[in-house]
Amino acid sequence: MCELLGMSANVPTDICFSFAGLMRRGGETGPHRDGWGIAFYEGKGARCFHDPQPSVESKIASLICEHPIKSHVVISHIRQANVGRVCLENTHPFQRELWGYTWTFAHNGQLSDALFELTLKFYEPVGTTDSEYAFCWLLGEIRERFTHQPNDSRMLYRFIREKCQQLQQLGVYNMLLSESVHLFAFCSSKLSWITRKAPFGKASLLDCDMKVDFCEETTPNDIVTVVATEPLTHDEVWQSIQPGEMVTFVRGIPQAE
Amino acid sequence: MCELLGMSANVPTDICFSFAGLMRRGGETGPHRDGWGIAFYEGKGARCFHDPQPSVESKIASLICEHPIKSHVVISHIRQANVGRVCLENTHPFQRELWGYTWTFAHNGQLSDALFELTLKFYEPVGTTDSEYAFCWLLGEIRERFTHQPNDSRMLYRFIREKCQQLQQLGVYNMLLSESVHLFAFCSSKLSWITRKAPFGKASLLDCDMKVDFCEETTPNDIVTVVATEPLTHDEVWQSIQPGEMVTFVRGIPQAE
Repeated sequence: MCELLGMSANVPTDICFSFAGLMRRGGETGPHRDGWGIAFYEGKGARCFHDPQPSVESKIASLICEHPIKSHVVISHIRQANVGRVCLENTHPFQRELWGYTWTFAHNGQLSDALFELTLKFYEPVGTTDSEYAFCWLLGEIRERFTHQPNDSRMLYRFIREKCQQLQQLGVYNMLLSESVHLFAFCSSKLSWITRKAPFGKASLLDCDMKVDFCEETTPNDIVTVVATEPLTHDEVWQSIQPGEMVTFVRGIPQAE
Repeated sequence: MCELLGMSANVPTDICFSFAGLMRRGGETGPHRDGWGIAFYEGKGARCFHDPQPSVESKIASLICEHPIKSHVVISHIRQANVGRVCLENTHPFQRELWGYTWTFAHNGQLSDALFELTLKFYEPVGTTDSEYAFCWLLGEIRERFTHQPNDSRMLYRFIREKCQQLQQLGVYNMLLSESVHLFAFCSSKLSWITRKAPFGKASLLDCDMKVDFCEETTPNDIVTVVATEPLTHDEVWQSIQPGEMVTFVRGIPQAE
């Protein structure tokens, strides 16, 4: 299994605090030694870092912790390999372009070989993971159904959820997906989220001795949602997404379907 | 104008020496202050770093200089903006997937507005540069002509060169393009290359007081080709590519058409 971390915020926000916790699971408090990656959206642009090395030993991961990149949407992943050897092209998150947006995808879980019978119509995997294959299929389905970006976003939410439910029938399929505006979080077994907004409190990481007082880091209008495989802090109330459900966030706020 | 830097090698090689020279042109010895980017191929995987900040001030650029990433193929670019504002989505190199390969593209020059009348068939730009539009068009043309990767690579070389010649009619179009195996270098006004192999000598950078003795860095079987907008060293003989011509490198060796 792997660990997912996502963020959706209404102001450019750094994810250092949460990322510091996740990183420790990459070979220290967790068994996820098979690489890690993180994508930061700045406007429509996406900056992506990949490293097949364990995150706890990674110089690039240290750089990200020390020199915060502020972003509206973040998707991160640390990997414990099941399908596909440990190498750069098998390292999440994966990216493809659709409608002039860079789509970013990370997956936690494992899908059966029946996945590879699904027909790919537009996108082909570069590596050999079930995850990238699922992403190529999913994005190809979206592209076929919606030639252009739909005006009614709820049609898109429903379509993505249905396709994720189809993938879920092939195994475990927890997913984070974004095109820069929306953060789509589909839960097949475990995925939790928390929205931090005024009045802000304090929080302590589960994975290392690190606390933050969000009052000192934020303004009263900030809304910041963090999504993770498992809660990252022990003194806040996280919400679980129910298996088979998807929550879509825009600027930190969960959207109605 | 911008600066291009490419590498093709038969062994994983670090590009620190050449990159150090290029980086100085990003706001110090050159006027290219509008961001920079670099892509490293490791097998089929590609690791890409983008920074809209000047390279000479960039912490990520320092990290790359200090912690060499060894690669068979590298494409790098530092930007002096003409078309498109300075932001992440306008920062080269650009990437798209075709045939299960990540294609990487960087451009030096400027193309007329007639470019935007060319029909895009598969790929759409995320940003607003002429360069990314040209890349989307070029890759779409390749995709339409070759549904699958052609067995005869020379057909592909010829097709890419013809399409580049078509783009060149719209302005200045120096280009580096790769899909992990080939490095395609098309010259419209200036592009030079040098192949370093045994017996290796010494070289001194033009842009800063830095020398390297390649004997100490290499084995006798290494073949390393560097392509750049202008020669990076003053004590080696660089070859110019003629305007309208393309040289394709595989494992450091120029390929016959």
